[in-house]
Amino acid sequence: MTKSSETGKETVVRLQPMLVNLIILDLEAKQLHWNVTGALFRPLHEMFDEFVEAYRGWYDEVAERIRALDAPADGRATTVAAAAKSGEVTAGLIRDREVIQVFLKRVETVAAGMRDQLEYLGERDLVTQDMVLGIVEGLEKQAWMLRAQLS
Amino acid sequence: MTKSSETGKETVVRLQPMLVNLIILDLEAKQLHWNVTGALFRPLHEMFDEFVEAYRGWYDEVAERIRALDAPADGRATTVAAAAKSGEVTAGLIRDREVIQVFLKRVETVAAGMRDQLEYLGERDLVTQDMVLGIVEGLEKQAWMLRAQLS
Amino acid sequence: MTKSSETGKETVVRLQPMLVNLIILDLEAKQLHWNVTGALFRPLHEMFDEFVEAYRGWYDEVAERIRALDAPADGRATTVAAAAKSGEVTAGLIRDREVIQVFLKRVETVAAGMRDQLEYLGERDLVTQDMVLGIVEGLEKQAWMLRAQLS
Amino acid sequence: MTKSSETGKETVVRLQPMLVNLIILDLEAKQLHWNVTGALFRPLHEMFDEFVEAYRGWYDEVAERIRALDAPADGRATTVAAAAKSGEVTAGLIRDREVIQVFLKRVETVAAGMRDQLEYLGERDLVTQDMVLGIVEGLEKQAWMLRAQLS
Amino acid sequence: MTKSSETGKETVVRLQPMLVNLIILDLEAKQLHWNVTGALFRPLHEMFDEFVEAYRGWYDEVAERIRALDAPADGRATTVAAAAKSGEVTAGLIRDREVIQVFLKRVETVAAGMRDQLEYLGERDLVTQDMVLGIVEGLEKQAWMLRAQLS
Amino acid sequence: MTKSSETGKETVVRLQPMLVNLIILDLEAKQLHWNVTGALFRPLHEMFDEFVEAYRGWYDEVAERIRALDAPADGRATTVAAAAKSGEVTAGLIRDREVIQVFLKRVETVAAGMRDQLEYLGERDLVTQDMVLGIVEGLEKQAWMLRAQLS
Amino acid sequence: MTKSSETGKETVVRLQPMLVNLIILDLEAKQLHWNVTGALFRPLHEMFDEFVEAYRGWYDEVAERIRALDAPADGRATTVAAAAKSGEVTAGLIRDREVIQVFLKRVETVAAGMRDQLEYLGERDLVTQDMVLGIVEGLEKQAWMLRAQLS
Amino acid sequence: MTKSSETGKETVVRLQPMLVNLIILDLEAKQLHWNVTGALFRPLHEMFDEFVEAYRGWYDEVAERIRALDAPADGRATTVAAAAKSGEVTAGLIRDREVIQVFLKRVETVAAGMRDQLEYLGERDLVTQDMVLGIVEGLEKQAWMLRAQLS
Amino acid sequence: MTKSSETGKETVVRLQPMLVNLIILDLEAKQLHWNVTGALFRPLHEMFDEFVEAYRGWYDEVAERIRALDAPADGRATTVAAAAKSGEVTAGLIRDREVIQVFLKRVETVAAGMRDQLEYLGERDLVTQDMVLGIVEGLEKQAWMLRAQLS
Amino acid sequence: MTKSSETGKETVVRLQPMLVNLIILDLEAKQLHWNVTGALFRPLHEMFDEFVEAYRGWYDEVAERIRALDAPADGRATTVAAAAKSGEVTAGLIRDREVIQVFLKRVETVAAGMRDQLEYLGERDLVTQDMVLGIVEGLEKQAWMLRAQLS
Amino acid sequence: MTKSSETGKETVVRLQPMLVNLIILDLEAKQLHWNVTGALFRPLHEMFDEFVEAYRGWYDEVAERIRALDAPADGRATTVAAAAKSGEVTAGLIRDREVIQVFLKRVETVAAGMRDQLEYLGERDLVTQDMVLGIVEGLEKQAWMLRAQLS
Amino acid sequence: MTKSSETGKETVVRLQPMLVNLIILDLEAKQLHWNVTGALFRPLHEMFDEFVEAYRGWYDEVAERIRALDAPADGRATTVAAAAKSGEVTAGLIRDREVIQVFLKRVETVAAGMRDQLEYLGERDLVTQDMVLGIVEGLEKQAWMLRAQLS
Repeated sequence: MTKSSETGKETVVRLQPMLVNLIILDLEAKQLHWNVTGALFRPLHEMFDEFVEAYRGWYDEVAERIRALDAPADGRATTVAAAAKSGEVTAGLIRDREVIQVFLKRVETVAAGMRDQLEYLGERDLVTQDMVLGIVEGLEKQAWMLRAQLS
Repeated sequence: MTKSSETGKETVVRLQPMLVNLIILDLEAKQLHWNVTGALFRPLHEMFDEFVEAYRGWYDEVAERIRALDAPADGRATTVAAAAKSGEVTAGLIRDREVIQVFLKRVETVAAGMRDQLEYLGERDLVTQDMVLGIVEGLEKQAWMLRAQLS
Repeated sequence: MTKSSETGKETVVRLQPMLVNLIILDLEAKQLHWNVTGALFRPLHEMFDEFVEAYRGWYDEVAERIRALDAPADGRATTVAAAAKSGEVTAGLIRDREVIQVFLKRVETVAAGMRDQLEYLGERDLVTQDMVLGIVEGLEKQAWMLRAQLS
Repeated sequence: MTKSSETGKETVVRLQPMLVNLIILDLEAKQLHWNVTGALFRPLHEMFDEFVEAYRGWYDEVAERIRALDAPADGRATTVAAAAKSGEVTAGLIRDREVIQVFLKRVETVAAGMRDQLEYLGERDLVTQDMVLGIVEGLEKQAWMLRAQLS
Repeated sequence: MTKSSETGKETVVRLQPMLVNLIILDLEAKQLHWNVTGALFRPLHEMFDEFVEAYRGWYDEVAERIRALDAPADGRATTVAAAAKSGEVTAGLIRDREVIQVFLKRVETVAAGMRDQLEYLGERDLVTQDMVLGIVEGLEKQAWMLRAQLS
Repeated sequence: MTKSSETGKETVVRLQPMLVNLIILDLEAKQLHWNVTGALFRPLHEMFDEFVEAYRGWYDEVAERIRALDAPADGRATTVAAAAKSGEVTAGLIRDREVIQVFLKRVETVAAGMRDQLEYLGERDLVTQDMVLGIVEGLEKQAWMLRAQLS
Repeated sequence: MTKSSETGKETVVRLQPMLVNLIILDLEAKQLHWNVTGALFRPLHEMFDEFVEAYRGWYDEVAERIRALDAPADGRATTVAAAAKSGEVTAGLIRDREVIQVFLKRVETVAAGMRDQLEYLGERDLVTQDMVLGIVEGLEKQAWMLRAQLS
Repeated sequence: MTKSSETGKETVVRLQPMLVNLIILDLEAKQLHWNVTGALFRPLHEMFDEFVEAYRGWYDEVAERIRALDAPADGRATTVAAAAKSGEVTAGLIRDREVIQVFLKRVETVAAGMRDQLEYLGERDLVTQDMVLGIVEGLEKQAWMLRAQLS
Repeated sequence: MTKSSETGKETVVRLQPMLVNLIILDLEAKQLHWNVTGALFRPLHEMFDEFVEAYRGWYDEVAERIRALDAPADGRATTVAAAAKSGEVTAGLIRDREVIQVFLKRVETVAAGMRDQLEYLGERDLVTQDMVLGIVEGLEKQAWMLRAQLS
Repeated sequence: MTKSSETGKETVVRLQPMLVNLIILDLEAKQLHWNVTGALFRPLHEMFDEFVEAYRGWYDEVAERIRALDAPADGRATTVAAAAKSGEVTAGLIRDREVIQVFLKRVETVAAGMRDQLEYLGERDLVTQDMVLGIVEGLEKQAWMLRAQLS
Repeated sequence: MTKSSETGKETVVRLQPMLVNLIILDLEAKQLHWNVTGALFRPLHEMFDEFVEAYRGWYDEVAERIRALDAPADGRATTVAAAAKSGEVTAGLIRDREVIQVFLKRVETVAAGMRDQLEYLGERDLVTQDMVLGIVEGLEKQAWMLRAQLS
Repeated sequence: MTKSSETGKETVVRLQPMLVNLIILDLEAKQLHWNVTGALFRPLHEMFDEFVEAYRGWYDEVAERIRALDAPADGRATTVAAAAKSGEVTAGLIRDREVIQVFLKRVETVAAGMRDQLEYLGERDLVTQDMVLGIVEGLEKQAWMLRAQLS
């Protein structure tokens, strides 16, 4: 490991929940990609697939950073589900306007959670912080796009 | 819905677990893509990414078939985790040879489970059966590739 | 011809109306691609062009299967029009919501008609049945996408 | 509409038959793509598919110009068939040399018909005339290629 | 310069305002690409980017035609702003339906202005006229697409 | 192996000759690609290369299905030659018309042979049957294209 | 908005002038792309088009960041012209060497202006700072390329 | 032939010299691509290859238009040389600045010659005129690019 | 120049006629691409365009080798015509079978002429010989393809 | 034929066995692509497919050179098998390390055999020799890659 | 230069050794790409080429940053060799497992060296720091991949 | 090894310095790509990157040929530097005209050195000679391009 082990471990502790949250966003965006209904079905169906592409790229990046810090990454279903429980989308079909509200909240929560770690990361590992900054920029851009559809 | 509702519902009941199992394979293949160690790290790291591509295509196909049968699809984290519990990969790093054994078992179980539904599906909906046949062919090809590495 | 002539002829008799129906869908989807109006103009304008691409591929496949069964294929305008008369879209502009209702009915009818032939085809020519299964899967997926916009 | 309505309407009256004629060429070229026989099957089979690509691009252009002139476009099967009746290809297989003769006549007729409108269009809408000029160039090039095979 | 200087100068005098108007459309389409809100955010956000691509290609073509007529082209910010003042979009966010109305007016005005120059150009330089015809066709097609969303 | 061993073995026994026959078609199509003569040299030279591409894809698919059924595949030269002896193309140059007759017979024989196995396969392994259906469709399409050149 | 509103507003106040300055660079680079003369016309003509591509990507990024911070972006012609007035390129043709001198000054000024905001941004929003760092790197690289041509 | 034979013949008489002149430009541009020397070797070497691409596309278009008018096209070496004699580039190496002067004259002469035919063509065949307009636009753009390097 | 000047000059003397002959083949192949008639029009029309691509690549290679040997290359129309006189294709349309005979003779003559220089080149410049070997291989392959159509 | 017939015949006599040997390598590489087992399955499975691509390109090149020398090429199964008998891979699965040893011997034998013909070819046909040199370089590079895995 | 000269010089002093170290990694990765032996030859041979691509991109980025800071970059062989002496790979073949150990040490050393400069750079030039952060992330990812193969 | 060991060793002795010289050209071309100044900066900056691409391809080819001859390749920094010492570019910025003179000398020296080995290689290994011929052709083409800029 190229950093002092102690700092590396502290960094990993903050990255692991980000990995899990981005996998949850991936699964939920797919869920809505399938189950959305209403006049806006098509633009939303396509938007969620674009988001899914982004989440998959981002969580791979986070997991590989964890490995670069010499720790194992955990993206297994039970680990993910443990974090997903509260606030998970309800089963079944869901109308277009509701979809946007529900998912905006999810994205804002994950983005805010990652933003809260920036200072902590900056003191321990600038390389990791830099990677997280790019993901937060992407999430906040998604949040704008969702918010714009609600106003 | 273009089929009698009754038959459609029966078909969906068999497709929903397939959707979940393919998502589990996706998550576990990624897990091993990250955490595999040993001299064969690189070919396995790449193989798991190829598998992930396949699972993502297949589970999207299954979920959209469920929707074509006029039912909602459920690929949420908690639903997935409920099915994943038994037999899930252990956390942490895992050596190359063990990786192959563990994952071969997973693939064979999912493939066999889907194969067991073929007759049932054939009596209810040939369109769905045809789609599942293609996925089983793909899974059994993956199983050969894993088995070949063990012998 | 690689099948007994008798069976081949029976198969062709069922394929020729499918060819015509898929050409009608192609022409009507283009008609709506041009004449749709309303706030949802753009997503519908694009959706119909995607559908058109699918119909063109499918009817070429059906016509070439007819030729492989050693019969001529008939996709001429008058042949198509004879089948199109009942239920054809009215001339002129047509509003977005109405467009979806009208076209969903068309797609469902064609998909159901092709599905009704599956058993008959399966007893005569599994190769043809297999080709038709793929087209029905595609049509039923389009039906879901239209239905989702109405609910 | 960006032109005086009167002029626009006069222009549309001349464009609508062009739309229909190009759709007929599309359907007939496909018909011959499938049903041609003889030693020259392959080059003709491929040539008709190239022509089909051209017709599809051109009739979309014409229909969208009609819409830009604020009128609805009509490319429905019955409309097309009404114009196609006289001179339609006979059903069934058709030998290579005959195919070329039959189709050359079709292309020359449509090209000449469009050329006859050029002056009229030039006095009413130069933009539409310019679009039609490009299509006539393409049709006359196809006519050469067919003629060259007959001499 | 390959034309008589006098004629060339007269042509340039008409091209320079077209250059400026197309740059204004580029800037305004971007402005709306960012600031549009409402349920139709996504299809409009994408539509404006497609329009921007078209304007950028067109104004480069106009400016290079001015240069081919041996005159300098002027696309500087102050030159553009002088022409943009009247009728400029208001600052701030703007709702989807309003966006379409506002921009349709802009496109129609620019298209009509360019159309008004066609006869003048035709008497002086057919080459320039031909280039402008293609741009007017494109603008009038955009106008249809916007109009269709309002009806 | 994901099927009962017994059924798997029976399936493989039918797949192995298909593998060999498709390799023979590959070698013979190349042979004719090189040695055809006559006015139709060029379209035939190109057609055989397209066929070669198809055979190579298909026999790889068959061999990998044999491996997925946990048996070795045998595509060695002597194995192939043993099956090729009867009916092999004569050495040397061969004229265009004769080429088509000779090869049509080969394709029809292989297609018919594979078609004869469909029922047997359907009772043992639907996954294998489905793969074979796709290959038979392709071979019967090639047969049409050859037959069309003879009539 | 995922940041405290106060901080977000302060950040936007610094981003809005960057948006405007990058649009000015875009317009001026195009202006020089057209009006440059001299033996080095071609390499400069091409260089300015590469620069234009960069500016268009960068100002879109800045504007979308402003939107992600929940403020409207302003890239209208009059807003841009207000900032462009001082130091704008003179109208008309401009010789190659002078072009480089003039544009180097523009690029250096914009780059320096953005660099001056880095500390301020770093204290308010690391995500925005990170995005700006990438743009400054690009601008300073362009400045080197221009400077190298003067020495 | 789709035009009256008389008019077609008159049109061809004007197209044949254009064909020859564009082939001469092709040969001379290649000649200079190879033999240019001086500090500006590289940008000129590349520019001439871009010009060559344009000439090849244009003269193919002209020759195929001649064929569409049912006349043979003549692009043989002796025909080309007869027209090339006066004003041909001198053999041997040629310095960068001189290259531009020499070639500018060639391009201007060919462009002016084609422009002189526009009225004549417009009275006989608008389709041919439209095609020539596009080529003249291209040649006059090349002339600007050469002229800009001389000033 | 990297070879002794004497040897270089001797090599160039043999390369210059090759350059001219390959340009003649280019012009004649285009001539036949346009003027061929008969049932085989299409495959020949396409074949000549493939040949043209090859000649253009080869003569550029020869001319640039002449330049690498520090001599000017001469590919001007009058130089080419002087060599083309004897044996040039007659003007006007030309039937498919005759086209092949005429062009085969041309290709064989050029290939044989280049082959005759191989020994001479091998003694003076192996680098040039190696380049010529590749071109002769290509020409002799073209000759086979033409010959095959005549037998 | 562009060479003296006698020399051409002698050359063909040496090329025909090369054609056969390269087809054997193609068939055996595919055989091992399917039947290899062991931990190194995946890199070997992929390596053999790369080799197969090379063999297919090379034997097509050799066969087309035989045709260019005016002789028929023989790549039929029985011809290939006659040469393949001695030294053919044994049927069935084969372990990774053994695979490399077996195939290295095959490649070295073919490469050495072709190398032995170089002098003979050089005296008769430099064009053919040059083509063979390229293939030998490729085979010897493959031999290194196999050898490197054994040491 | 857009920064104070003093700060720029200090930054360059830290960048120059990074440039040299990345060139050394490039040369050594190529050295091992060629000389590695053992059962893992192929995956390592490919991995080193991927690494080489990364180093070449990174050292170009570093050198161009040095130039943007208005200093010359030094990547000459003697400069590189002076830094490479200690710790250079031994000449000759090298076995797979040893290759990984040797190269992991190299990568870790370079990554750690660059990481040690981060604070220093952050105080002087955030733009440079940001560029270096991306390279360190890449190097630490490579280190993980190597380390994983050793465990 | 497929050649007699003795001859192989002699060949390698000549290839090793070529490998080193091509790496030196790669490093120096990059050095000048960065440090060139003057009005011709851009065309030279781009030219050197094209050259770098060529050197990298060529030295990989040489090193892999050494490996095919069963010897290790040596491209380490110290080995390269030992050969680079005499005649290395001076550090620091360097003006455009000087750059061309300096680099032309380098290229001519390397090309001449490789040309001097051709006879020696031809007597020992025609395969290696053939590979070197292609590289010398490329280097002599580069030399022409540099020389042309000086005259």
